[in-house]
Amino acid sequence: MSKTITCSAPVNIAVIKYWGKRDEELILPTNSSLSCTLSQDQLQTRTSVSFSPTYTKDRLWLNGKEEDVFKSARLRNCLSETRRLRSEYEASLEKKGNSSVAKLSQYFVHAASINNFPTAAGLASSASGYACFVFALCKLYELPISVSDMSRIARTGSGSACRSLFGGFVAWEMGQLKDGSDSQAVQIAPETHWPEIEAIILVVSDAKKATSSTSGMQTTVQTSELLQHRISEVVPRRMKEIIHAIEQKDFKAFAEITMKDSNQFHAVCLDTYPPICYLNDVSKKVIELLTAYNSGPDGIKAAYTFDAGPNAVIYAPKANIKELIQFISFYFPPPRSNPTAYFPDPLKIFQGESWASPKESDFPSQVRGIIPVFPEGSINRIIHTPLGDGPRVLDEGSSLLTAEGLPKEQNA
Amino acid sequence: MSKTITCSAPVNIAVIKYWGKRDEELILPTNSSLSCTLSQDQLQTRTSVSFSPTYTKDRLWLNGKEEDVFKSARLRNCLSETRRLRSEYEASLEKKGNSSVAKLSQYFVHAASINNFPTAAGLASSASGYACFVFALCKLYELPISVSDMSRIARTGSGSACRSLFGGFVAWEMGQLKDGSDSQAVQIAPETHWPEIEAIILVVSDAKKATSSTSGMQTTVQTSELLQHRISEVVPRRMKEIIHAIEQKDFKAFAEITMKDSNQFHAVCLDTYPPICYLNDVSKKVIELLTAYNSGPDGIKAAYTFDAGPNAVIYAPKANIKELIQFISFYFPPPRSNPTAYFPDPLKIFQGESWASPKESDFPSQVRGIIPVFPEGSINRIIHTPLGDGPRVLDEGSSLLTAEGLPKEQNA
Repeated sequence: MSKTITCSAPVNIAVIKYWGKRDEELILPTNSSLSCTLSQDQLQTRTSVSFSPTYTKDRLWLNGKEEDVFKSARLRNCLSETRRLRSEYEASLEKKGNSSVAKLSQYFVHAASINNFPTAAGLASSASGYACFVFALCKLYELPISVSDMSRIARTGSGSACRSLFGGFVAWEMGQLKDGSDSQAVQIAPETHWPEIEAIILVVSDAKKATSSTSGMQTTVQTSELLQHRISEVVPRRMKEIIHAIEQKDFKAFAEITMKDSNQFHAVCLDTYPPICYLNDVSKKVIELLTAYNSGPDGIKAAYTFDAGPNAVIYAPKANIKELIQFISFYFPPPRSNPTAYFPDPLKIFQGESWASPKESDFPSQVRGIIPVFPEGSINRIIHTPLGDGPRVLDEGSSLLTAEGLPKEQNA
Repeated sequence: MSKTITCSAPVNIAVIKYWGKRDEELILPTNSSLSCTLSQDQLQTRTSVSFSPTYTKDRLWLNGKEEDVFKSARLRNCLSETRRLRSEYEASLEKKGNSSVAKLSQYFVHAASINNFPTAAGLASSASGYACFVFALCKLYELPISVSDMSRIARTGSGSACRSLFGGFVAWEMGQLKDGSDSQAVQIAPETHWPEIEAIILVVSDAKKATSSTSGMQTTVQTSELLQHRISEVVPRRMKEIIHAIEQKDFKAFAEITMKDSNQFHAVCLDTYPPICYLNDVSKKVIELLTAYNSGPDGIKAAYTFDAGPNAVIYAPKANIKELIQFISFYFPPPRSNPTAYFPDPLKIFQGESWASPKESDFPSQVRGIIPVFPEGSINRIIHTPLGDGPRVLDEGSSLLTAEGLPKEQNA
């Protein structure tokens, strides 16, 4: 017997940032965090997993390229834990008198995974990747566990992956226990609770390779004198406040906390020794533009947040998206080499109109005359997406593996 | 009777940063700070003050342009306090039976002040300016007060001005009293204690007007959640540590604290809402270069520090200055429009050699191959200076005022 399961999982972008581990091995964070799950229709990881008696070892292909599963403790964590749970499950079924239980835990696994967004987009693929891998394994093994249980396993692959197990608004509760059994994701509200909120991702060109999150947060924990205060005082309060804002659909409160927490995350990076600076001059200009935008008569209309790199993610009510993209694309004109990839507009917000030549006179007055206009291509691409649901099981036709358990050619 | 006094005062650059007032009126800081005084032979404010029965009001010319003394509470603070002390002094002398005391406190004052460094250099002139103004008035009035007493008056003009009343290494003790009478500068060590330490100022081109220190620190005090921790925990310990490092001439300890405190100052700026970002991509590159430089076999060889703007100040032992300037001028080539102003070399460290075409192969290996090389003119000017002494009384020939009490033409 053999079986293949194909799943997809979404990207999530935190509004209360995760930065710092209290346990490097188990990936236990120094503070809770909260994110929004973005729609898989725009950005997703798709993963097929299969088992077969013919397989001679565990194998994994990422974007068509084979990875050595045994070299990655994180991949092994996820695979061995789901397999252990399957083995337990098999034993418990047998104990209940079910003698025909398939011993799936004894078979090797093949897996193939692709992202539908270019690596060059600078979007962390580890969150959606590990979430998808673990979710697919749990489905393959038919494990009778909750999504929060799955999130704990995904957490041991990549911390923020645990938040990609749910749609909508998701908290990663840091937990207190040493073994990490209470450090998991929970859904605060589904995406349908507050469908007005959408996201714009500004993909910023940056020659410089950023400090990796893993080593960056390690250095911050070791050297930042301000991090402790953030962990013990600031984040616990902000978690409560932003959950309340989400429940009340209070965008101004949600946005202010989001911006403040992004600022503070980058502040503790700068307080690290040697300092870590993820924001560049383009990022700073985006902050300046949104600060100006939010200073108008209507108050806060959009919230920026930045992860461990210069890319901006902007959360805003649907009604403000068009004018946001208009003035952002004025101050950051498309790259001449590839203007059509700059803003593909799959959601058709500019249907029947031109977005390519925004006129300053059309903008809200508070964002006019904010010089300088940046060189063409300072922002490579604008991605616009609603929030979305958690991992999905896809039909057989979506499989990335052939009947022999090898990656289909399309992914090579 | 009439009299003119001309003085000069130095610039100081903090290594433990002042950021935040607990009293806006009296300019009382939320934490102590510490600075190095730079040599007046390179950078100075010169100020002449005079009184005369013929003057009909208080008048002040800054760089040849008349300012309205009454419009500036800060100028009035300094002038009225020194005048009040003169009046008290006159009364005390009379009380002692001296009946021929000159009632200088009843005359109007004229003052003229110039900086020998261009405003475009982006160096804060308020510290040297207020220090010089107050020092000159105290000399004009022949006040029998200590330099620390003078520093308290200068503090009410511009906080960091109090530190320019001394040479060498200077602490501004924040004090505890409500009236500010214990918030003053004290000399930790004269410049002669540790003459090996020199400074390099990198004047960074920046189109954007920075947030003023006054409003910036106000917003930080109001909104940064991390500032309190810095104030109560971090700075008190760092003050002790850096004073010890200065006393022991321990450059590595001095440099590490200096860099960490610069980082933390910019961290609390970023934690401000809306955030304040004084560092730009050039500043970040300077940090990256010095971090690489300090990662070599000899450990820490130079310390960066940044005030409320993108300019870098580097403190380093004299022995390292030449190679520092070599590799910095390689990564930041001189502006083509004015290459000779880029590095005037008044201290002749490149005497008989070429500094203009640095070769990467000559650099310490840890600073080779750090791309990118920035566009010409990203740094406008390199100023190299030793540390120096406190305010000086200059001879009559240095006066900026004519016999009639008007600014000499050279300053118009």
